[in-house]
Amino acid sequence: MDLTALYKVSYGLYIVSAAANDRLNGQIANTVFQISAEPPTVAVSINKQNFTHELIASSGKFAVSILAESTPMELIQKFGFKSGRDIDKLADTSHRVGQTGAPIVLEHTVGFLEAEVVASLDGDTHTVFVGRIVDCGNLTDEPPMTYAYYHQVKKGRAPKTAPTYQAAPPPKAAKLPQYQCMICGYVYDPARGDPANNVPPGTLFADLPDSWCCPVCGAPKDAFQAL
Amino acid sequence: MDLTALYKVSYGLYIVSAAANDRLNGQIANTVFQISAEPPTVAVSINKQNFTHELIASSGKFAVSILAESTPMELIQKFGFKSGRDIDKLADTSHRVGQTGAPIVLEHTVGFLEAEVVASLDGDTHTVFVGRIVDCGNLTDEPPMTYAYYHQVKKGRAPKTAPTYQAAPPPKAAKLPQYQCMICGYVYDPARGDPANNVPPGTLFADLPDSWCCPVCGAPKDAFQAL
Repeated sequence: MDLTALYKVSYGLYIVSAAANDRLNGQIANTVFQISAEPPTVAVSINKQNFTHELIASSGKFAVSILAESTPMELIQKFGFKSGRDIDKLADTSHRVGQTGAPIVLEHTVGFLEAEVVASLDGDTHTVFVGRIVDCGNLTDEPPMTYAYYHQVKKGRAPKTAPTYQAAPPPKAAKLPQYQCMICGYVYDPARGDPANNVPPGTLFADLPDSWCCPVCGAPKDAFQAL
Repeated sequence: MDLTALYKVSYGLYIVSAAANDRLNGQIANTVFQISAEPPTVAVSINKQNFTHELIASSGKFAVSILAESTPMELIQKFGFKSGRDIDKLADTSHRVGQTGAPIVLEHTVGFLEAEVVASLDGDTHTVFVGRIVDCGNLTDEPPMTYAYYHQVKKGRAPKTAPTYQAAPPPKAAKLPQYQCMICGYVYDPARGDPANNVPPGTLFADLPDSWCCPVCGAPKDAFQAL
């Protein structure tokens, strides 16, 4: 059984969002799909640990902002690798509140969907929320981002809570030990170091200063585990 | 509400297959997605009218053959626009029987997944079958077909039973009346005729011979409705 075959399943890239108890939040998701045309019905798969899961479960509503191919990594990192429990992701993100109350992101978004939850399905780590479309529309004519494009062109990774997360393959024996951020999946490779943060190639993980943190999601050094 | 925003949701293109009561069948599907990484779990959305739905519901198992970008329209038409109740689609298609008993198509397939159904969800016209992966693997390194590629490059359409089917927009008033096949969605446009079947451009639908049938799925003339 070679689980890398799962990488060949195609997806887009979205911000799934919701609102409850005066809190707005959204998160990156790739598993958004239409499951019926009449009435128009979509489903999203959301990790049970995520704050957005809590808001969808509480409000029974969600919105989907469909990201453009041109979406910068900064927006993906803000919505994909940080928790809405810690920061207000919408505070400095252009958005409008939709008819479901959920925020629709207006930056780098080609279209949106809003849905009311009509069913949900337990998928172990995730819940699949099924929603009847109550509003949707196009914002620009740009091509939507696909997950393949995100991986191939943007060199993006899936966070550990993604349905499609796969642990990186173990490094070959001769290599210096690599460490992976358990929050976002970033791999620290001593052969490359972290030049953006003045860590030269060849620096062992153990020799990184205690103040060093994950260059993708900002997690502290102790959030890393050896591969 | 502009439902064309749903076209911006990204998908791949797959043959979802199953076996029961000594019958093998498979059908084109675009809604295949991973919903959990641990244990690896996928979901497929299948129209309740389809023969493959009957076989999955009966056997509790299914396979997914992930199609390559190079997949010819002939294979897509055979599996997408004809019913396994009428023809044995596997008879002249290279395949092997997987450990679930379901056929894995070996033509133009980049990888496969096999799953045992652990839950299902009623989606009105469709059922979402959730399956625990029991086997999967890669067959070639070709890029997988995306639904966007299928629509843009192959000019493909969704059959009427697809989760993502949308009726074609009505033609502009000045045009000659177009007719659509209610089986597969093919649109007969008098301005183009059907040159492959010796019907010259400018031929009205009403003037087609009674023996004429849908060039995509073979449905008779009375399966067409005016748009």
